Amino acid sequence: MAAITVKPSIPKGTRDFGPAEMTRRNYIFDTIRKVFRRYGYQPIETPAMENLSTLLGKYGDEGDKLLFKILNSGDFLSSAGGPLPANPEKAALMISEKGLRYDLTVPFARYVVQHQSELTFPFKRFQIQPVWRADRPQKGRYREFYQCDVDVVGTNSLLCEVELVQIAADVFKALGINVCLKINNRKILAGMAEAIGAPDKMMDITVAIDKLDKIGLDNVNEELRADGLSDEQVEALQPILGLAGGKEEKLAGLEKILTSEVGKKGIEEVRTLFGYIDALGVDIKTELDLTLARGLNYYTGAIFEVKALDTEIGSISGGGRYDNLTGIFGLDGLSGVGISFGADRIYDVMTRLDLFPSEANAATDVLVANFGGDDEMYSLKVLARLRAEGLSGEIYPEPAKMKKQMGYADKRGIRFVVLCGENERLAQSVTIKDMAAGEQKTVSIDEAIAIIKG
Amino acid sequence: MAAITVKPSIPKGTRDFGPAEMTRRNYIFDTIRKVFRRYGYQPIETPAMENLSTLLGKYGDEGDKLLFKILNSGDFLSSAGGPLPANPEKAALMISEKGLRYDLTVPFARYVVQHQSELTFPFKRFQIQPVWRADRPQKGRYREFYQCDVDVVGTNSLLCEVELVQIAADVFKALGINVCLKINNRKILAGMAEAIGAPDKMMDITVAIDKLDKIGLDNVNEELRADGLSDEQVEALQPILGLAGGKEEKLAGLEKILTSEVGKKGIEEVRTLFGYIDALGVDIKTELDLTLARGLNYYTGAIFEVKALDTEIGSISGGGRYDNLTGIFGLDGLSGVGISFGADRIYDVMTRLDLFPSEANAATDVLVANFGGDDEMYSLKVLARLRAEGLSGEIYPEPAKMKKQMGYADKRGIRFVVLCGENERLAQSVTIKDMAAGEQKTVSIDEAIAIIKG
Repeated sequence: MAAITVKPSIPKGTRDFGPAEMTRRNYIFDTIRKVFRRYGYQPIETPAMENLSTLLGKYGDEGDKLLFKILNSGDFLSSAGGPLPANPEKAALMISEKGLRYDLTVPFARYVVQHQSELTFPFKRFQIQPVWRADRPQKGRYREFYQCDVDVVGTNSLLCEVELVQIAADVFKALGINVCLKINNRKILAGMAEAIGAPDKMMDITVAIDKLDKIGLDNVNEELRADGLSDEQVEALQPILGLAGGKEEKLAGLEKILTSEVGKKGIEEVRTLFGYIDALGVDIKTELDLTLARGLNYYTGAIFEVKALDTEIGSISGGGRYDNLTGIFGLDGLSGVGISFGADRIYDVMTRLDLFPSEANAATDVLVANFGGDDEMYSLKVLARLRAEGLSGEIYPEPAKMKKQMGYADKRGIRFVVLCGENERLAQSVTIKDMAAGEQKTVSIDEAIAIIKG
Repeated sequence: MAAITVKPSIPKGTRDFGPAEMTRRNYIFDTIRKVFRRYGYQPIETPAMENLSTLLGKYGDEGDKLLFKILNSGDFLSSAGGPLPANPEKAALMISEKGLRYDLTVPFARYVVQHQSELTFPFKRFQIQPVWRADRPQKGRYREFYQCDVDVVGTNSLLCEVELVQIAADVFKALGINVCLKINNRKILAGMAEAIGAPDKMMDITVAIDKLDKIGLDNVNEELRADGLSDEQVEALQPILGLAGGKEEKLAGLEKILTSEVGKKGIEEVRTLFGYIDALGVDIKTELDLTLARGLNYYTGAIFEVKALDTEIGSISGGGRYDNLTGIFGLDGLSGVGISFGADRIYDVMTRLDLFPSEANAATDVLVANFGGDDEMYSLKVLARLRAEGLSGEIYPEPAKMKKQMGYADKRGIRFVVLCGENERLAQSVTIKDMAAGEQKTVSIDEAIAIIKG
């Protein structure tokens, strides 16, 4: 192995996580996982690599380009079955048959179809795994990031929507993040398109009004006209876009405008969902946001989005109901609903607002100093006792100068240092130093354990 | 999205993990993680993708071929800088600059060098992540599998070796697996090569005797001769290969044969390590195995391997000391030692010997039956109480027939079903059915909680 003198690096858009970040990230994952379990969801994991036939065509043309493709092993050129065409997408398919997963939803749909005979429906699963996207790296956007998805498939019951709202409430309460959960319904969006006589423009209208917050009403109207809506249709949409007030006012306003069956159904679903939330006293701020569409084509009922309130980081969670996700893999008639928690965004919010509790701390409980010689074995036995009591502890591996050993404890953020020199060994005691208080005293091992446990 | 009628599948050598497997796997990971933490090791994670410049040349020519390479994004053919040569390895490098990690050791070395200014040495880290190898898939060998590595770098102290033995003892005791930890030392292997006058053949000798268990003494001798050892040299090696008895007998035998400085140092290191293990009473069966080499070129001192005793699965853990791993990335002089736990092998051993405890069970604690109508809200409120008590619980999402709801609880392995019908609602009580015992009774909510908590 020849020495390389260039400082090593990692691919752009990817990250290393050191101990401090890991501990905070695990605090988030553990909190989310605990809530998922409390609601009866069960963990699954799928492979990082999926067949490209599973992934392609599921995320639109843009998504296909953002898939990381794995080069076939071995003599990939000979097995390509012919010379590579200049078109990179066609050429890629001749030398690559696997790709890294782009999200957890399509692998979940594939999983449900592949394992349908083993599963009990309704099937409630959660999945916490990284996904990969060849996006242009930018601040806060990565090419490898974790998703935390929770979904139930195999039932149309609105109780599932209620449960997801409860889960969001529990997760963000446990994390200490002040949020607003925005709710909309795709059927209301469809009802709007029908109400203005443009049912075939539902997607365009949805995409345009999804941008209302970002680009403002005038630009949305312009985009709607560019999409082929007549001035009359754009005009007819204004009362809907302008609906203000609380959910009751908005629903009352919608009831006057949406007269189609699907529109009425959407209003009813939203009313039912809010009714459950109120009756159960679910502890989360909610809002009916008629401009919420989340761009995703596959939602068919409820649409959710969670925003952090005390900082400008935006959406930290979102989801909705999809009626036929497994249909793309040949299994029709399974309705599902789910919500995804964005671990990176949540991490950023908690860091910015200083919300991590002191437990989310990577430090070891205690360092046993190393005096070498005869004292070493006594130190090792003391350390074994501390560990047997459930404390995390380490011994400095060499009998270095005390200043160096103390410096190590300090840099590592280890609060207690236990010293076992000759006097302590002969008395079967220890001297314990509290690095935070700067105090030390000589006590029995049991007393030291009590002090460290606080 | 057109419907696909072919049943979806996953790439060969990869696996889906369903709820039951996940819970058992997490039991293993959690047990290992808890021990690592108790010994003061801290978690890190590195990206799935590394630059190929980081990975290539680190695992030998065969390893280079087994790397999964990621096709460059965009117009990879135009940016290849010329027509692709017929040689697949050269061609791959023109259209691929990233690969999936092959193990956790090289990314760790890269991490240490890249982040050296932020780290406190000795640096004790653990890492539990999947790795990918384009191996020919076969029974028990996968293309995606988890490694659980624990290493300390930045000290030569043998206390680290002792600590790794303690960690292995704690892990396998906690998992209930009866094991033997085999120990050898690369310096002893070097001393053997010197003792027979073939110091330049140390690697060949090591590789050959590593196979002693598998292919037998005669075949090993033949391989040694094929490697260029003279008959006299092979003959001179026989007393070493034939050393029998306990560690004391073997060490005494070695002391007569190994006279070089490195050989003596190896014997001294092994004696010291066993001395610590005995004095601390580390609770694990150990053995000095002079044929243990573990094929890996980078070990320079202690070599470890753990075998499960009660089943024929073979090695479930292994590691050793490497003196200059970070040298390949330009940072010399950092000695490290580590051990890796094979989660898949451990899973197989525990499954075969039926060692998973009943806690390693994916089931939800309780299902609340759904009677619909007025009873539904009462059921939801009871469920919220159960969850607030830390129980995992779910409501059947539809007011289906009781037989169907009971069948769901049964298939999911949910032991308790709580029924909240009109009588219970009016009395603010619940009827609880123990699916295991087949009994049911009507009790207060508090009593039900006590029953479920057992």
